[in-house]
Amino acid sequence: MKEVNASIITIGDELLIGQTIDTNSAFIAQELNKIGIWVKRRVAVGDVKDEILTALKEQSKDCQVIIITGGLGPTADDITKPVLCEYFNSGMIINEEALQNVKAIFTKLNRPLIQRNLKQAEVPDNCFILPNLRGTAPGMWFEKEEVIYISLPGVPHEMKGLMQHSVIPKLKEKLILPAVVHRTLLTGGIGESMLADAIQDFENNLPPHIKLAYLPSYGLVRLRLTGRSDNTELVEKEVEGQFKKLKPLVIEWMIADADVSLEEAVSELLKAKKKTVATAESCTGGYIAHLITSRRGSSAIYKGGVVSYANEVKENMLGVRAETLQQFGAVSEQTVTEMVQGVIREIDADYAVATSGIMGPDGGSTEKPVGTVWIAVANKEKVKAGKYFFRFDRRRNIEMTAQTALILLRRWVLEQEAGNH
Amino acid sequence: MKEVNASIITIGDELLIGQTIDTNSAFIAQELNKIGIWVKRRVAVGDVKDEILTALKEQSKDCQVIIITGGLGPTADDITKPVLCEYFNSGMIINEEALQNVKAIFTKLNRPLIQRNLKQAEVPDNCFILPNLRGTAPGMWFEKEEVIYISLPGVPHEMKGLMQHSVIPKLKEKLILPAVVHRTLLTGGIGESMLADAIQDFENNLPPHIKLAYLPSYGLVRLRLTGRSDNTELVEKEVEGQFKKLKPLVIEWMIADADVSLEEAVSELLKAKKKTVATAESCTGGYIAHLITSRRGSSAIYKGGVVSYANEVKENMLGVRAETLQQFGAVSEQTVTEMVQGVIREIDADYAVATSGIMGPDGGSTEKPVGTVWIAVANKEKVKAGKYFFRFDRRRNIEMTAQTALILLRRWVLEQEAGNH
Repeated sequence: MKEVNASIITIGDELLIGQTIDTNSAFIAQELNKIGIWVKRRVAVGDVKDEILTALKEQSKDCQVIIITGGLGPTADDITKPVLCEYFNSGMIINEEALQNVKAIFTKLNRPLIQRNLKQAEVPDNCFILPNLRGTAPGMWFEKEEVIYISLPGVPHEMKGLMQHSVIPKLKEKLILPAVVHRTLLTGGIGESMLADAIQDFENNLPPHIKLAYLPSYGLVRLRLTGRSDNTELVEKEVEGQFKKLKPLVIEWMIADADVSLEEAVSELLKAKKKTVATAESCTGGYIAHLITSRRGSSAIYKGGVVSYANEVKENMLGVRAETLQQFGAVSEQTVTEMVQGVIREIDADYAVATSGIMGPDGGSTEKPVGTVWIAVANKEKVKAGKYFFRFDRRRNIEMTAQTALILLRRWVLEQEAGNH
Repeated sequence: MKEVNASIITIGDELLIGQTIDTNSAFIAQELNKIGIWVKRRVAVGDVKDEILTALKEQSKDCQVIIITGGLGPTADDITKPVLCEYFNSGMIINEEALQNVKAIFTKLNRPLIQRNLKQAEVPDNCFILPNLRGTAPGMWFEKEEVIYISLPGVPHEMKGLMQHSVIPKLKEKLILPAVVHRTLLTGGIGESMLADAIQDFENNLPPHIKLAYLPSYGLVRLRLTGRSDNTELVEKEVEGQFKKLKPLVIEWMIADADVSLEEAVSELLKAKKKTVATAESCTGGYIAHLITSRRGSSAIYKGGVVSYANEVKENMLGVRAETLQQFGAVSEQTVTEMVQGVIREIDADYAVATSGIMGPDGGSTEKPVGTVWIAVANKEKVKAGKYFFRFDRRRNIEMTAQTALILLRRWVLEQEAGNH
């Protein structure tokens, strides 16, 4: 199996002062990965000639594909094109196709075309042009000593269009590439090390062309199998076979057997069961509602909720009794139980989830320190409440509480729906 | 003025397959920038020994500070520590402090401690330990031939804690750094180019050691003045003087004259005026409530809200009339007005904000296409509603709506409070 390695070079001072989070590289890496090209390295450099030249030289030593983004704009600090001319020992010419594109864009925008903009159609004389349908800077394709260099604009929307419409098809045409197959599952409620212990034998017995990766994020761990081979059909079958072996080993913690988010898994479950949910949030302050409603089509499963931050809102909107609050406090089993019962009654949903806790940094006490949380889930007949403790900062305590609430809600729905059949 | 250059090396296959967007590098770059260290390069490599070794060798050629993140987890693919041992020619030892930390964390979580976790306390024998208060993997500080190497866990929350509490103070102590002074202001409701036009003369007349940066994010633009010099007192005075010139030029769009978030500016305003706010969210689905409650001490200004996703929730919880919904639809001036009036009445806050719109990708019509939004702000006497249109994807439409709502709320509070005096 011939390996094709790639390097991504991103150019721009904004990447080095932390002004911009580089989302381009992840997109490019995903696209290359899908067609069997392995990204060996990513490098970010400033708008500095020598830095760019060095990066080009270094990366071409062991990579057959080099993708360069950024530095193609019309302002003085955009120096990628002259640097490419120097690197490839070429002159600059006006490309007629690119010029027509620039003119067409300015006509459409009804803006005056100034000299600065016409320069966007200038390109080194030894490259192929990749037409940019979404902007004025064309993509450029160079070949030198068995290495392919592709220069793309840094504007994500333009870069994406060029990758999908030009770069990927052209790379597939030019190179002989292996097949790459991924299968991913999502687990929750178990740490990375415990998980690793549980599937140690499985991992050790994987064939060398199938790799297992642990991808942890905020209390969840994704497990991903990746197979690479020249034989597409065979590797698909093999990865599928290993995935089937892996699933029962982690079934206890498995949230989904696909590469989805937790809120996606919960939403899909409710959708499949044709059930709705409501939220009553104190300490999570609307974050659970936000996670659920971030997904398209969430109105099919989400009816609404109350953010009952102040105690009087818990009383007036959710019917929590004043005596309950007085006797047990807002962060208690009794209060969170009345909250979840209140919201399911008021909103008339099939299921509900409620949270009440102390997220910090203020508001803790010896009895109820910062990080103490009560979470309740319910259907119209029953409630289940549990106490949790998170030891992070405010933002992360909120995230962990929301996540735990969604895991509990999912389990609760699964149990109740199983009981109904 | 002596320049200190840094390089950031991020380690992990997940960065090279595009699974993870690297937000760590931007944070690290920002923090280093603040203390006068220039990030010259960023490199991402896989969990591959030779790749990591080469990166360390290459980056130490022209950088005095090298920050390494990732690859410190307890699983087999985390190889940073053995590679560092090889690079620094050291052996591995158990660090007692790190071991106590691992044990304390597992005790607190009430989880069984397995051999694999204990390995988290193993470190190369020639490094200083940077205690990780948020996780099991300690930070490590090495010095070799005038270069400082710092290895941090890749979990953003842990990396941030280590950067702020250990790395930055220690770097300031160890290195002679130029004085760097920043002054930042936040604008909203104006694009980057328009803003650049409005302050063109100001920008052209800045002295060479004071730079102006445009930091755009989601419809807001931060303007940051940065002065660098060996003379702390002088540069502070100069930057302050320029900042005073800049402010009146952008006063129309200025939200705050400090480096704060929009929700921070709104919360501080309400706190100063001793007023409370309530939210009634349809299309933003709890996101405005989440933004407000993410800040510590938010209970002083936020009473609560309703996420009225389904129309029946708008009716039952907020008292929106069935006829209003039927005649004008959920996304209308009439509905959003009744929503904001309903929530201020039910929750008894001084101010309220309400949103109703179509975030997409589904649910649009010719009359009300995806991106159409109504936003209303109110106090107990008056309501003001406005129609907006956003042309992004679902997630960004939600963010833009929440942001616009907070800008409107801030203006409304300022107007009303001015009228009261």
